[in-house]
Amino acid sequence: MNAEIIAVGSELLLGQISNTNAQYISKVLSSIGINVFYHTAVGDNRNRIIDVLNIATKRSELIILTGGLGPTLDDLTKETLAEFLDLCLVKDEASANAIEFYMKMRGRPVTVGNLKQAMFPQGSMILPNEHGTAPGAIIKKISKTFVILPGPPFELQPMFERYCLPHLSEYGEERIVSKVLKIYGMGESTVEEKIKDLLLNQSNPTIAPLAGYGDVTLRLTVKCSRSDDPENWFKPLELELRNRLGNFIYGTDDETLESVVAGLLKKNSLKLSIAESCTGGLISDLLTNVPGISNNLTESIVVYSNQSKSKRLAIKEETLKQYGAVSEQTAIEMAKGIKYFSGSDIGLSVSGIAGPDGGTEIKPVGLVYTAIAYGKDSVQVQRHQLIGDRKRIKITAANIALNLLRLTIIGNCTSD
Amino acid sequence: MNAEIIAVGSELLLGQISNTNAQYISKVLSSIGINVFYHTAVGDNRNRIIDVLNIATKRSELIILTGGLGPTLDDLTKETLAEFLDLCLVKDEASANAIEFYMKMRGRPVTVGNLKQAMFPQGSMILPNEHGTAPGAIIKKISKTFVILPGPPFELQPMFERYCLPHLSEYGEERIVSKVLKIYGMGESTVEEKIKDLLLNQSNPTIAPLAGYGDVTLRLTVKCSRSDDPENWFKPLELELRNRLGNFIYGTDDETLESVVAGLLKKNSLKLSIAESCTGGLISDLLTNVPGISNNLTESIVVYSNQSKSKRLAIKEETLKQYGAVSEQTAIEMAKGIKYFSGSDIGLSVSGIAGPDGGTEIKPVGLVYTAIAYGKDSVQVQRHQLIGDRKRIKITAANIALNLLRLTIIGNCTSD
Repeated sequence: MNAEIIAVGSELLLGQISNTNAQYISKVLSSIGINVFYHTAVGDNRNRIIDVLNIATKRSELIILTGGLGPTLDDLTKETLAEFLDLCLVKDEASANAIEFYMKMRGRPVTVGNLKQAMFPQGSMILPNEHGTAPGAIIKKISKTFVILPGPPFELQPMFERYCLPHLSEYGEERIVSKVLKIYGMGESTVEEKIKDLLLNQSNPTIAPLAGYGDVTLRLTVKCSRSDDPENWFKPLELELRNRLGNFIYGTDDETLESVVAGLLKKNSLKLSIAESCTGGLISDLLTNVPGISNNLTESIVVYSNQSKSKRLAIKEETLKQYGAVSEQTAIEMAKGIKYFSGSDIGLSVSGIAGPDGGTEIKPVGLVYTAIAYGKDSVQVQRHQLIGDRKRIKITAANIALNLLRLTIIGNCTSD
Repeated sequence: MNAEIIAVGSELLLGQISNTNAQYISKVLSSIGINVFYHTAVGDNRNRIIDVLNIATKRSELIILTGGLGPTLDDLTKETLAEFLDLCLVKDEASANAIEFYMKMRGRPVTVGNLKQAMFPQGSMILPNEHGTAPGAIIKKISKTFVILPGPPFELQPMFERYCLPHLSEYGEERIVSKVLKIYGMGESTVEEKIKDLLLNQSNPTIAPLAGYGDVTLRLTVKCSRSDDPENWFKPLELELRNRLGNFIYGTDDETLESVVAGLLKKNSLKLSIAESCTGGLISDLLTNVPGISNNLTESIVVYSNQSKSKRLAIKEETLKQYGAVSEQTAIEMAKGIKYFSGSDIGLSVSGIAGPDGGTEIKPVGLVYTAIAYGKDSVQVQRHQLIGDRKRIKITAANIALNLLRLTIIGNCTSD
């Protein structure tokens, strides 16, 4: 079954909000094997909504409309769909009662607009809204299935999962399942070069590379019957990709560099401490997004001023004077210092120039040093010249540091 | 001039990424008075891209395509558009050189795929890509204007603003301009209550309230001619709103709590230091996104372990034992400690339980204390019970702390 999603709302076309509903619905539908081939966004305008419905019914069997179910006059979705399908609008008593109850609970009067929210194209199967006053509906006509859903994501998502999905899952015959392999430290074109023959001869699963903020992902997508375990389809290809790309692959699907690093720290019972400068706390923020990290993260210091570097980490004044705060030497002393003072197994440090000011000819904006101290006396340092604005330099530097941490743990711990 | 935006990429239809490019471009186009009437997303599939181009050329004069300009085989946008417009692809020497230079700077080999990125439909005006290897282009044919842009937002946005927009701005007639007032510390319904009469009688500018992560925004939108200064339209309404909402309004448009706080620190020449626990470095990360903050932020310590709290901030063992790490007393000692040890004017602290584990009946997940020490002996502490998952609790706690900091500076410095 082929589906498309139509978002109705001028606020989308003015760029005031992003169409996250399309992403959410697509993800859920693809997980049950319904192909989404198009997303459309259109304004609160009768004629243009009709045009879009005309196009959609020619190319899709399942048409999902989001938004435009509100109480105000510019909310037109149900009215226009009813007109398009030549159905009259009828009042749904259960919805009218639910809306009245909802408003009463909040001490608000029921308006005429609210009652309009209880009107549906004849023959609708109602989808209750437990988080607002706009119920949704499923309507079958001209051998097509139309679904209408409210715009606010916190109303749409629970309604979709609880009331709509059970009716749609029967349509999925085959499943499309994706698995994403995540790569760090290798450019998109190099990745492609290494797996060129696989890309050229792909069929099922397919392979699609995508470049992100310094990382590259390979999306493997398999089409299989609902009874198949998609893992069996992925296994041989994933094995081959891992053989070729090795440790550059850091994780799959929802894994992030920080969640992988947190897992490695936990598995090997390691204590980590961090000294950040140009990343300004971002590495620590990322790592502390992972539940349970408090057992492995001792402390993290953003030594933004030179005074703080000296006081907290005993960076020699000499070093700062001779080499500067952004230097191999300072980064090494930072990593050693934070490891020593916090009594942890690993000390990680980053120092650099995030810009836009502060760069010189010799040390331009984007110059970043990252160092790691571990074991008795081991220390490693890397130099990178990054591009982009302040925020991007921070993010890239944080990811580089997390990746260095990952590779160091893997390289020094026998178990992984 | 009517425009539409076509995003090309199967990852959109699988729900792996959200179409934020459409939002960004729509916002910019509407600000120069170009109406965007449709957004479409379509997969990496020649036939379906052709179908979408056929529909678009029937209804729009400006057609903007995003994505599908990468070096890999499934990147089809330029090839399909050339075929659709009956144009051959020719190599752009300047782009080829720029790509070679870009790859060389990163010590990466130039691949065949990269050179494909230098091929364009004949007659293209090239839009240089300063942040990646995929240049964009503007192509005029059959009395339509086609724009092709790369998919990654950090490549698309600077290219669009710097190279594309100057060519498009001549098309706009009227302008739709928005100005956003940002409110922190007052709920959406209270805000609405206070400005009810203005909401009911709005015309031009219009007012649209929107609730976010703990903050509320009021979007004022005005439609005016290109020669008008929109500020003249906003001024009387903004003044009235500021009279009613006072200091709850913390900023406008792209201002954030952190940028406003950074501005106040700078203006009053104040040195800040931060002791974070449950926010894990997020406050520091947010503040260091603001350029120039290094003059005002001395240091920030994520005292994640009790050992770190004692060692770095001299929190009494007694306090930790008697009241616990998440308590009014500990938060106060943290704020005082970081202020004292860093020798700064203001010490800010946050301690709480971000979850999902670690909560008890007396101290549930989401309990957060935030304290601020300033002047000779002044200290303030707030207790909050937050809801949501780990990440949301971190974000809300960080914003509460930044807002406390903002109000403290405003309340204690005469100049603002």
